[in-house]
Amino acid sequence: MTYAREMLDTYPGTVAMMDHDALIECIEACFDCTQSCSACADACLGEDMVDHMRRCITMCLNCSDVCASTGRILSRQTEFEPAMVRAALQACAEACRLCGEECEHHATEMDMEHCRVCAEACRRCERACNEALSAVGA
Amino acid sequence: MTYAREMLDTYPGTVAMMDHDALIECIEACFDCTQSCSACADACLGEDMVDHMRRCITMCLNCSDVCASTGRILSRQTEFEPAMVRAALQACAEACRLCGEECEHHATEMDMEHCRVCAEACRRCERACNEALSAVGA
Amino acid sequence: MTYAREMLDTYPGTVAMMDHDALIECIEACFDCTQSCSACADACLGEDMVDHMRRCITMCLNCSDVCASTGRILSRQTEFEPAMVRAALQACAEACRLCGEECEHHATEMDMEHCRVCAEACRRCERACNEALSAVGA
Amino acid sequence: MTYAREMLDTYPGTVAMMDHDALIECIEACFDCTQSCSACADACLGEDMVDHMRRCITMCLNCSDVCASTGRILSRQTEFEPAMVRAALQACAEACRLCGEECEHHATEMDMEHCRVCAEACRRCERACNEALSAVGA
Repeated sequence: MTYAREMLDTYPGTVAMMDHDALIECIEACFDCTQSCSACADACLGEDMVDHMRRCITMCLNCSDVCASTGRILSRQTEFEPAMVRAALQACAEACRLCGEECEHHATEMDMEHCRVCAEACRRCERACNEALSAVGA
Repeated sequence: MTYAREMLDTYPGTVAMMDHDALIECIEACFDCTQSCSACADACLGEDMVDHMRRCITMCLNCSDVCASTGRILSRQTEFEPAMVRAALQACAEACRLCGEECEHHATEMDMEHCRVCAEACRRCERACNEALSAVGA
Repeated sequence: MTYAREMLDTYPGTVAMMDHDALIECIEACFDCTQSCSACADACLGEDMVDHMRRCITMCLNCSDVCASTGRILSRQTEFEPAMVRAALQACAEACRLCGEECEHHATEMDMEHCRVCAEACRRCERACNEALSAVGA
Repeated sequence: MTYAREMLDTYPGTVAMMDHDALIECIEACFDCTQSCSACADACLGEDMVDHMRRCITMCLNCSDVCASTGRILSRQTEFEPAMVRAALQACAEACRLCGEECEHHATEMDMEHCRVCAEACRRCERACNEALSAVGA
């Protein structure tokens, strides 16, 4: 139901010289991760032991913000600027790494299912950012 | 690949008393529409006749912003506040209506394929917002 | 240090037919309220009794998101669309009203200073949205 | 009228071990730059010669997005994570550098006043990010 590929395919000009599949996967991973991180911050806030969830909430809120801005930047083909895209992808990969680790910790040690789902979203997005970084060139 | 349903299903507390399918569809439609509107604003900017695309660009940028905030608000179940959700959904339905109309216009009269895709995303999101409004109650 | 007035004064075309002071005050109030609500959600999360702060955190996160999108929409003069602006302002006034009430409650009954500051930011933004609504016309 | 300093001063826990003035200036610079970049993208779109403004519009939209997410991340003191803050600041400094250069170009060569104001906002934010980077430590 996502439109990222169709939007890229119908772009009227020349698309960025980078692998399209890597770009589309990264756009989709960013928007999916924004959503899951917003939802996971909220699920953590709904836990009885919310006082143990502070770091996870902050990591999720930060990651949600960075993924949202990165997803938008990647969605822009007009005057695509590799230096900007690289900087955004680096920040996003780091946000996803930190959030994914924290969520993973709650998933394995406290059996929190929302953190397990969110850790998966973060790891997928971290991987997609790193692959997009390779695709966009150093 | 989206996590909206899994995140809702793993929420640790009581989920908002509204139809889950309507809620999930609306969350997904909002995030998809944020992306397609960012991409369509960019595609319009890449058109040779960009001076004819000003209204479409502004409608897309506005709609992308409103969909992003609405998608996040809907993703929060803790202390779900119907008055807030309704206000966000009303603004989002209006943003999607205005943007969808403008994109539709360029799709049919100027054969712009990116506008056709984005109009579809907007109409789907407008419909999802209106169905979520019914589900959340007046 | 804000640039909202200078940006409006240097806009190259015709600015929206609404009172400029009301528009500028509302733009500034929206961005200031986005910041204070993000900071207040965080300060509430840092409270020892975070389990009593859930509603305040959610109201702050929602209000921060709506203010951010509304501040951007108001910053756009090209193809200014009153129907869009009105819908955004209505949602924003409601978000600020709900968040301001909740923060006010914690400020007066629990003497939380960050909530007192945030309540002030929310009330100012609610007022600015209502005045901008009058200025933009029904 | 901004609340960043008051919000930091009323934070209930221990604030990040970094210079407060540098942190507050960076928070304010990020939110001000988000606004000016959204407004400058719009002003560029309103120019008669919009077809010469494409790069400036994209740089402004990207910079506005990165500044918004960075301003929020910096506003969070609970479980302040230096690695996240550094990654966000690096992306933001780069976004501001690229956007500031482009706006400066239009300000000096085409006498566009909105670009002159926005270039100032970008340079201030770039500087504030670099100073915050020094303050947060390597």
